[in-house]
Amino acid sequence: METKTLHVEAGSGYDIIIEPGVLDRAGEHIKNVLVRAKKLFVLTDSNVGPIYGPRLVASLETRGFMVRTHVIPAGETSKCAASLLELWSAMASFGITRSDAVVALGGGVVGDLAGLAASTILRGVDLVQIPTTLLSQVDSSVGGKTAIDLPEGKNLVGTFYQPKLVLMDPEVLSTLPDADFMSGMAEVVKYGCIWDAEFFRFLASRPTRAALMAGITHILYTCCDIKRQVVNADEHDTGLRMILNFGHTLGHAYELAGDYRVWTHGQAVAAGMVAISKLGERLSVTEPGTAEKIASVLAPLGLPTNIECDLEHMERAIGVDKKSSGDSVTLILLEKLGTVRPLRLPKADVADLLRDMPGWRP
Amino acid sequence: METKTLHVEAGSGYDIIIEPGVLDRAGEHIKNVLVRAKKLFVLTDSNVGPIYGPRLVASLETRGFMVRTHVIPAGETSKCAASLLELWSAMASFGITRSDAVVALGGGVVGDLAGLAASTILRGVDLVQIPTTLLSQVDSSVGGKTAIDLPEGKNLVGTFYQPKLVLMDPEVLSTLPDADFMSGMAEVVKYGCIWDAEFFRFLASRPTRAALMAGITHILYTCCDIKRQVVNADEHDTGLRMILNFGHTLGHAYELAGDYRVWTHGQAVAAGMVAISKLGERLSVTEPGTAEKIASVLAPLGLPTNIECDLEHMERAIGVDKKSSGDSVTLILLEKLGTVRPLRLPKADVADLLRDMPGWRP
Repeated sequence: METKTLHVEAGSGYDIIIEPGVLDRAGEHIKNVLVRAKKLFVLTDSNVGPIYGPRLVASLETRGFMVRTHVIPAGETSKCAASLLELWSAMASFGITRSDAVVALGGGVVGDLAGLAASTILRGVDLVQIPTTLLSQVDSSVGGKTAIDLPEGKNLVGTFYQPKLVLMDPEVLSTLPDADFMSGMAEVVKYGCIWDAEFFRFLASRPTRAALMAGITHILYTCCDIKRQVVNADEHDTGLRMILNFGHTLGHAYELAGDYRVWTHGQAVAAGMVAISKLGERLSVTEPGTAEKIASVLAPLGLPTNIECDLEHMERAIGVDKKSSGDSVTLILLEKLGTVRPLRLPKADVADLLRDMPGWRP
Repeated sequence: METKTLHVEAGSGYDIIIEPGVLDRAGEHIKNVLVRAKKLFVLTDSNVGPIYGPRLVASLETRGFMVRTHVIPAGETSKCAASLLELWSAMASFGITRSDAVVALGGGVVGDLAGLAASTILRGVDLVQIPTTLLSQVDSSVGGKTAIDLPEGKNLVGTFYQPKLVLMDPEVLSTLPDADFMSGMAEVVKYGCIWDAEFFRFLASRPTRAALMAGITHILYTCCDIKRQVVNADEHDTGLRMILNFGHTLGHAYELAGDYRVWTHGQAVAAGMVAISKLGERLSVTEPGTAEKIASVLAPLGLPTNIECDLEHMERAIGVDKKSSGDSVTLILLEKLGTVRPLRLPKADVADLLRDMPGWRP
């Protein structure tokens, strides 16, 4: 059994344990870390709960925990204030105390919502994350961001709150739909682009899901390790962390233009990484051919490498529309594969560049 | 003009400025501290807003801030999840950014709710507290506790979140009803009891509201300074801070027994301080005559020094009922005026003591 453990310094410090079948040993691991906890409030969703909930609960109860499971409907619409209120009431009626904990079993929606609930009930109880999608494993396990959406926009409400433990079971990825797996891969490729050229080549040589799964522990570990290094230096999202947004600015434009229905986050980020690298090449910041190399890793995974988008959405996402304040914007560009280079540019210059971009429709 | 400034180290550190008429200089003070803020979201209630809102807003707008005022109905029922949701939406539609801030103008309900909203919108924006009741000035300005109530109980949801600035205008106390002023005085007397015998004597020599108001800047400063010293050592409410609960445990029993309608918080705490000191005297921990001295300061202020309460509510509040876990409880007792002494006792002993307490009805 291949186990890897990564220690993250944020908050009071916590371990990320990556281990096939760890779901069945969750009770043991949690018992080791949360010595005073008696009650565990498990949040999961209607997709993940029926498949993996019973195994998790069995493992927790075997170790003597009193468990209450709360299931939300799968999907982004559950990441809302109404869900949070229900959660608060369910936790209160469960009689959770400050020495008890919340366990999140699911993808980003479950993790974000559980994190916010845990950080606010009784002014904060312990939190254990068990991410079950590739995206949440490589993206949400480090950084401590929690959130819900408001009708006015996504992720408008949240906290910074670090878990006490993250358990990652690569085996649960076997039930993840292909589209979700590949969407998560866009973020995986991103880590290679911004930080680790060797990891990028590792991914490039594994163009299928089966090949990627054969190296999944290394993939999960490497992504979390890179994010850890970035976030450690910047717990409150003020500086260095912005390099994690590589591909996300234009990606956000694509998501917005499609009203979050046409493109998944991963698809939008994939095309966004290629587009911003083309732009970087035109600026002579990015080594020529980089965009093409990124595209050649993404395409075999079924991820889009070029998304049409109107200029207005791109300008708004990148912050050079008329409503945005300030005179300049920061683009997250690559110097070459594995080396990121944030570049502050006058807004007018960026607006001109965007007008010359391929892939937008007038 | 008598101005006193107290620096609190919690969070990124902040000043408490106590100054008559500071309301009219709020814009100036806030501008000095929040150099990047453009928009200020002011939360107030239907009592305070009409009296002091226009002066505050005028002061803020003179300094160039864009201001949105949000008024909640006065009273504890506004400290609920529904108010929080409304606030989130109002902030989002105001277009608040991470460099903007929330300003709380009001008593504890406004401060608790505004603090929670500020700590969660956009994962935290800056917060300025302008407490307008004696209780919120001496109690909520230090400690960083935010909260809302749930149907399941009071203060069940909240965060620890430090303000960037606290402005305290003693002049606004002139419009505070007598009952609220005196309720705040119970907490003021508490600070003398647990920390500062000289301050206790200062209060004892001022048995009227007018006499107290003549020394109000000293009173506000002293209370905040004591709480600052206690909280500095204990930002996350795990140890020393419990001495601030002197009188509160039995006080809580009285509040509960009266369903929060019969007794105000201050009234309950007043009687709670006397009762627990009688108990301390019976245990030979507290200097004989202490309860009597406390009562003789409270009584002239119109505060109750003895509240009848059934044994069941007292046992539950103090944690010696059948439902409570653990074998012992900690009582916050005085050794003498100005010196607190937490005492851990077996539950059975405390239960016996309670049965002998005067003032409970069988």
